[in-house]
Amino acid sequence: MSETVGFIGLGLMGRPMAKNILKKGFPLVVHSRSQGPVDDLVAAGAKRASSPADVARQATRIITMVPDSPEVELVLDGTDGVFSGLQPGTIIIDMSSIAPGPARRLAERAKAKGATMLDAPVSGGDIGAIAGTLSIMVGGDLDAFNAVKPLLEAMGNPEKIVRIGESGAGQLCKLCNQMVIGGTLVVVAEALALARKAGVDAGKVREALLGGFASSRVLEVHGERALKGTYKPGFKTHLFAKDMRNVVSTLAEHDTAAPVTAVVQQLLHATMAAGRGEDDNSVMARTVFDLAGLE
Amino acid sequence: MSETVGFIGLGLMGRPMAKNILKKGFPLVVHSRSQGPVDDLVAAGAKRASSPADVARQATRIITMVPDSPEVELVLDGTDGVFSGLQPGTIIIDMSSIAPGPARRLAERAKAKGATMLDAPVSGGDIGAIAGTLSIMVGGDLDAFNAVKPLLEAMGNPEKIVRIGESGAGQLCKLCNQMVIGGTLVVVAEALALARKAGVDAGKVREALLGGFASSRVLEVHGERALKGTYKPGFKTHLFAKDMRNVVSTLAEHDTAAPVTAVVQQLLHATMAAGRGEDDNSVMARTVFDLAGLE
Repeated sequence: MSETVGFIGLGLMGRPMAKNILKKGFPLVVHSRSQGPVDDLVAAGAKRASSPADVARQATRIITMVPDSPEVELVLDGTDGVFSGLQPGTIIIDMSSIAPGPARRLAERAKAKGATMLDAPVSGGDIGAIAGTLSIMVGGDLDAFNAVKPLLEAMGNPEKIVRIGESGAGQLCKLCNQMVIGGTLVVVAEALALARKAGVDAGKVREALLGGFASSRVLEVHGERALKGTYKPGFKTHLFAKDMRNVVSTLAEHDTAAPVTAVVQQLLHATMAAGRGEDDNSVMARTVFDLAGLE
Repeated sequence: MSETVGFIGLGLMGRPMAKNILKKGFPLVVHSRSQGPVDDLVAAGAKRASSPADVARQATRIITMVPDSPEVELVLDGTDGVFSGLQPGTIIIDMSSIAPGPARRLAERAKAKGATMLDAPVSGGDIGAIAGTLSIMVGGDLDAFNAVKPLLEAMGNPEKIVRIGESGAGQLCKLCNQMVIGGTLVVVAEALALARKAGVDAGKVREALLGGFASSRVLEVHGERALKGTYKPGFKTHLFAKDMRNVVSTLAEHDTAAPVTAVVQQLLHATMAAGRGEDDNSVMARTVFDLAGLE
């Protein structure tokens, strides 16, 4: 019989991920701040836990899916946290998107308590979470990775579940992902802004560029959103801003100059200042269009 | 019988393009500063012209493929230029990559002399020029575009020969293309630099990113070049720098703020200053790696 799985954090992403784990037949125990999603999972066959420590007492595979490092810290090492109820040999899988530094330090603390911790942030949004087709970027012990691979495959596309390297490498890969998306998004918006300002059909420019070396998923998907002006999430800008804060702190930690990323970060501040935090992150194009004085 | 085609500018791109025109059976008359490529084309069946004006006296479809606006200006409107030998009804197709403003102004002068001028810059490099699979972005009169489409199809992929709009729109689209390639290239290099500085396998990061929303042709092709450190052209950096100068002047002309593009431009200056003008433009990644103190 499968090991019991614990799931902490049933938000927009966590809830459908936990449901997919249930569907694959894993015994599941859940905990979350809001009771609505907990009730929903219990109705679907999961057990309720009273605290993260209670999850740890019942499960030896524990997934955390919360907003950022302070929340992961609290859930693991706070009062009634996972660490206080830990069984020997437990594997903790943090699927939140946090900075690599804290991920490494938490993994060391888990190890000191006889557990193993993997960082395993995802890409693919709520749509990927519901469909069970997430990309999962994993950092940490290889044996632990192999042990939980079937569990990860309940949530992600098996071909896109990749162990990048040691502890923190999964989070670092996720930050690289967000850097590339952010930079590509802004420069695509700049190009479309120029086309619009010059009175040239920006839709035709986008199509022509998709046929060549300038093509990207961002040009395809975000480029279309930018031209239609539809910024429904998707992936909310305030969460993207959180990831970019982690990018910037990690660049500093490693003395890595990234001037385009620095500009993206500033435009993200301007996007937040314009009250667009709840829109899809492609709304940064709107900020670029504003800079050009475009409708 | 087909109209006689004139071709001016038999460089790295022009020479194979002219050869493809010959192969498709168009009568061809050629002119270029260097006699080697002219001799080569004459051996393949083309006629030699003594000047651009001489080309114009023999051909009613005239293609120009030279480095930048001053050269197009000289070839068309200089001493013994195309304009001094122009036959009524001639269609001039400038396939050089120049700024949209000069393209529009030259088209107006051509019109005043009874000719029609299209701007039709290409993408796809010398490989695409040899294979006859270039992307061609066209601006100018629709009837003229339709009239020369079979001629363009001798050089480009029929599905990627697109009329973007009125005069200058082809050049503007090409500038958008270069903006997007430049911005994507730099941010990809920044992400790979961070991975390398953090001691994470940058090749695995690139592969993981190619599976998701951060994927692009630049990540695929330039990303690989950056990681291997092989910067053989390809598309030379000094020509990319010329295109980016035209981007910056066109942004100014249309009051369009493009902060990421501005950073790309500065990094391009640094790349030229490091003596890398003859390398493939992906060598900008090397400049980003230098900034991070990487080998």
